[in-house]
Amino acid sequence: MSAEEQQQWFDFALDIAKRAGLVIKDGFEKTKTIEMKDNPRDLVTDTDKAVEALVIGEISKTFPDHKFIGEESTAAGAKCELTDSPTWIIDPVDGTMNFVHSFPYTCISLAVWCEQQPCVAVVHNPILDLTYTARKDHGAFLNGKKLSVSLKDDLSQSLVMTELWCRPDPAKMAVATANAMKVIKKCHGPRCMGSAALNMCHVAQGAAEVYYEIGIHAWDTAAASLIVREAGGVVMDMTGGPYDLMNRRVLCAANLKLAQQMVELLEVYDEDRD
Amino acid sequence: MSAEEQQQWFDFALDIAKRAGLVIKDGFEKTKTIEMKDNPRDLVTDTDKAVEALVIGEISKTFPDHKFIGEESTAAGAKCELTDSPTWIIDPVDGTMNFVHSFPYTCISLAVWCEQQPCVAVVHNPILDLTYTARKDHGAFLNGKKLSVSLKDDLSQSLVMTELWCRPDPAKMAVATANAMKVIKKCHGPRCMGSAALNMCHVAQGAAEVYYEIGIHAWDTAAASLIVREAGGVVMDMTGGPYDLMNRRVLCAANLKLAQQMVELLEVYDEDRD
Repeated sequence: MSAEEQQQWFDFALDIAKRAGLVIKDGFEKTKTIEMKDNPRDLVTDTDKAVEALVIGEISKTFPDHKFIGEESTAAGAKCELTDSPTWIIDPVDGTMNFVHSFPYTCISLAVWCEQQPCVAVVHNPILDLTYTARKDHGAFLNGKKLSVSLKDDLSQSLVMTELWCRPDPAKMAVATANAMKVIKKCHGPRCMGSAALNMCHVAQGAAEVYYEIGIHAWDTAAASLIVREAGGVVMDMTGGPYDLMNRRVLCAANLKLAQQMVELLEVYDEDRD
Repeated sequence: MSAEEQQQWFDFALDIAKRAGLVIKDGFEKTKTIEMKDNPRDLVTDTDKAVEALVIGEISKTFPDHKFIGEESTAAGAKCELTDSPTWIIDPVDGTMNFVHSFPYTCISLAVWCEQQPCVAVVHNPILDLTYTARKDHGAFLNGKKLSVSLKDDLSQSLVMTELWCRPDPAKMAVATANAMKVIKKCHGPRCMGSAALNMCHVAQGAAEVYYEIGIHAWDTAAASLIVREAGGVVMDMTGGPYDLMNRRVLCAANLKLAQQMVELLEVYDEDRD
């Protein structure tokens, strides 16, 4: 990827995210048509589908050789495969449950990965008009203002973001609950906003020190992982190993010292890979 | 209270909340001077104190016979007493922990109660520029737009807001945890944003269906309780009894049917009254 390509992809990603944002905002206050996916808490709306179709359609016209990984295309049976080719990884509506409830923490998450690395990221919340962006080696920004992670490195002084949704599998739910209880006892407080991408962006902007979760997907973290790293934070697996886009787990922290405190505390379980 | 008085108090409350908001916003991005109150998670900053002094000082000049209940005045030893006189109930910075972390869900909460009833309410988040207002019998508004609660009346289809901070007393923590786990299993999902007043306002705007908490104070709920009711919602004790400003518990819901489902589910414990 050349510098010119990176800039071109970034400009395109920002423009299409803003256009998609108008569709999300338009659907936000209306009655939604909701379908259930894997379980009663995994939902999809007409807006998720319309936004993904718009984004993929527009990108395909301009970059016909680029690949895609999209939440709704994958749900519809498309292969979730990351090659070395430029690949757009799309969550048309991250925080679909929030969108369904008109709870204002919802966004489109859009990343371009190339040679297995993230190089461009946009996370845009059109309801509160918050646009997080990053390009590899060029920093991370919120509405154009440069972001830096928190300087705190002690878990007892940290805000920790995660999500406490009910896992249908009791064994997985037990691990998730035990993790949450240990974290709540150690940290300044937990925060649960219902959008993985926005949770990660809160770490990037220094508002929270940590985010972790098991059960997320590639499209939830593909963009925000770059935003966190470009803001100076760390992104890894909850075991302490390298961040694995497809393994359904993530741990973000303002710094390695905090991440290590979390790794010591947390148990993990495996989900089927994306 | 005459209609003219209500309007005069409301105009004054809105103006002083906006001025206080500038102080909060100014302190938000700076290094904070933090003191601990009752426990390591109960904090106060210079901004909390400065805002409360500003607000009480200005109100006293214009309404010299009005009474006050303020978080920081109470912490400093002032009596927390509600009489029939017009009483301004002030949380200078609700979500102080969020403020300390520059986590953007923080606000000033300002209410006027008269004859033991709330009559004017302003909850202003100066970081995201969200201003919730209500006057008794005149509706509730967000940035001037009329609010209505959600129409959902089934807990399994509801977002439930609460806070999962670590109670120092293990018996109280056990009740809080058991409540949270039951709610998580029943509802669409929990949300924890770290500000009681803003949580309640999310119920008022129809973004969440329920909020409950034990351990809050009069100044956390005094304004938002009016905003929820004026948006069509219900505010009561977690036992199902009437809302008691001083008993450190609250349950808000979009409607009575949802509230009753919560009352059946929840256990309570008693805190020392305000």
